[in-house]
Amino acid sequence: MNEIKLFCPATVANLSCGFDVLGLCLEGIGDEMIIRKSNEKGIRITKITGADLPLETEKNVAGVAGMALLNHLNLEFGFEIEIHKKIKAGSGIGSSAASAAGIVVGINELLGNPLLRKELIPFAMEGEFLASVSYHADNVAPAILGGFTLVRSYDPLEVIKIKSPKDLFVTIIHPHIEVKTSEARSILPKEIPLKTAITQWGNLGGLISGLYTEDYELIGRSLQDVVAEPYRKNLIPEFDNVKKVALENGALGCGISGSGPSIYTLNKSYKTAENVANEIKKVYSKTKIGFDVYTSKICDNGVIKLK
Amino acid sequence: MNEIKLFCPATVANLSCGFDVLGLCLEGIGDEMIIRKSNEKGIRITKITGADLPLETEKNVAGVAGMALLNHLNLEFGFEIEIHKKIKAGSGIGSSAASAAGIVVGINELLGNPLLRKELIPFAMEGEFLASVSYHADNVAPAILGGFTLVRSYDPLEVIKIKSPKDLFVTIIHPHIEVKTSEARSILPKEIPLKTAITQWGNLGGLISGLYTEDYELIGRSLQDVVAEPYRKNLIPEFDNVKKVALENGALGCGISGSGPSIYTLNKSYKTAENVANEIKKVYSKTKIGFDVYTSKICDNGVIKLK
Repeated sequence: MNEIKLFCPATVANLSCGFDVLGLCLEGIGDEMIIRKSNEKGIRITKITGADLPLETEKNVAGVAGMALLNHLNLEFGFEIEIHKKIKAGSGIGSSAASAAGIVVGINELLGNPLLRKELIPFAMEGEFLASVSYHADNVAPAILGGFTLVRSYDPLEVIKIKSPKDLFVTIIHPHIEVKTSEARSILPKEIPLKTAITQWGNLGGLISGLYTEDYELIGRSLQDVVAEPYRKNLIPEFDNVKKVALENGALGCGISGSGPSIYTLNKSYKTAENVANEIKKVYSKTKIGFDVYTSKICDNGVIKLK
Repeated sequence: MNEIKLFCPATVANLSCGFDVLGLCLEGIGDEMIIRKSNEKGIRITKITGADLPLETEKNVAGVAGMALLNHLNLEFGFEIEIHKKIKAGSGIGSSAASAAGIVVGINELLGNPLLRKELIPFAMEGEFLASVSYHADNVAPAILGGFTLVRSYDPLEVIKIKSPKDLFVTIIHPHIEVKTSEARSILPKEIPLKTAITQWGNLGGLISGLYTEDYELIGRSLQDVVAEPYRKNLIPEFDNVKKVALENGALGCGISGSGPSIYTLNKSYKTAENVANEIKKVYSKTKIGFDVYTSKICDNGVIKLK
């Protein structure tokens, strides 16, 4: 195989009580990437559509992640890549992670999978570092592994994959505003009350339990974030209204996707997710803020080989 | 049925990363309790062996918990109880919880189980309040439900039961020293770094995941407490040595039971638990501190009807 075409999924990180540790992979939205073997060493980005991103390897998330993998594998040849972006940069659903995940999975596939998918995560994190000047796996882990992913530890890195309950559907609304990751970070307190922390990890325990036992109501009750959301929601106009409308219309839970501005809801059944999508649209329709809405199953595979 | 005899199990609360939310139920150590229907309303404690505890209903943990249940049920009759304590008070393995759990389960059994076991927890918590002036379910929840229990939320109270992986065995060492609960509490910081909290809930997520997937190694890697143990271990002489010896001898994890002074270890297989028990004994044997050691399976039933 000399060429591969991939679907590189969007992801939701910082899933409420799973702040900084829990993410999920979307099936309904993602980029496409084509990767070809080339006699020339290194990575050459030949085409990018859908976004104004640098073609220079060392300035491009996919380029950096790919090079990290190539340096590890020490190959005598290289790759050409085309990136067709559909996930908007800065939307909070893992645009850079999709590219970083896509390139490492794609190269690994072209080589006959010398590495396990889990082992690819650190290389994709190198790409994420270029995008956000921080090593994090919140988005690349679900993009590579699919389902829900829990980053149990960074030192050493350990990611646990949890299969999604089958009737769980996600609705995402992306209001067209900018939330600077740096501001979303600096707005959080460095210290939190022990009592608040205990509430958060009680809910995280409940959420993980709900995912394993497919207890949708428990998942809903557990989807609370008493740590980051109270601060970060102030950066997203209408957040409280969207959440209220989502819950009133049957969503199990609702929170900020990543560091925003996208808002995610989890729902039992596609029908509920669609209904929630229609209702939360109306919130932003009353404002001057443009938006996109997506309804999606949770993708249990991560990056998918299209041909 | 007019009389019931019960095994009221010891429990381990504050399971490392599950500080304040996660506990487990022991099979190998517990009190016995006999409860008889009586024509007289209320609860009369007729006999206590094994401990110097008050016979007055309103001063006794079992008395208070039982009365809380009776007041709820509004019965025309009452109960006499005998308590045979085997769990030492102040050992950190839920001595008061065993009594509080036993009385409510026993009365409920004698009445033909009008309430679910889960519904008994708040009444047992009334007993715990007498013992520690705080409403907590850390020990009564596992004592009533068995297995592992997660207190997802106190407001409203929600406890989730998780069955124990079948090869999991507990070793407990109880050094004969006093750790005042008030000191164990006041020694903890009111605020903790957000980063520390994230480490804790990453591990809790890993632990819950390990319990559902019966992944013993993951359970072991997750059994870390970066929040309470660094402070509380200073109240327990030889804690670091016990932990080191336990881990070197194959324990999956080791931590403080409740607020101490008992130390628990989780182990895969009875043989390992026994071996760990023998090795950690040696640590205290070299000191002037007396101790008890117990090795136990995890009890999946909670309070057990003996006849």
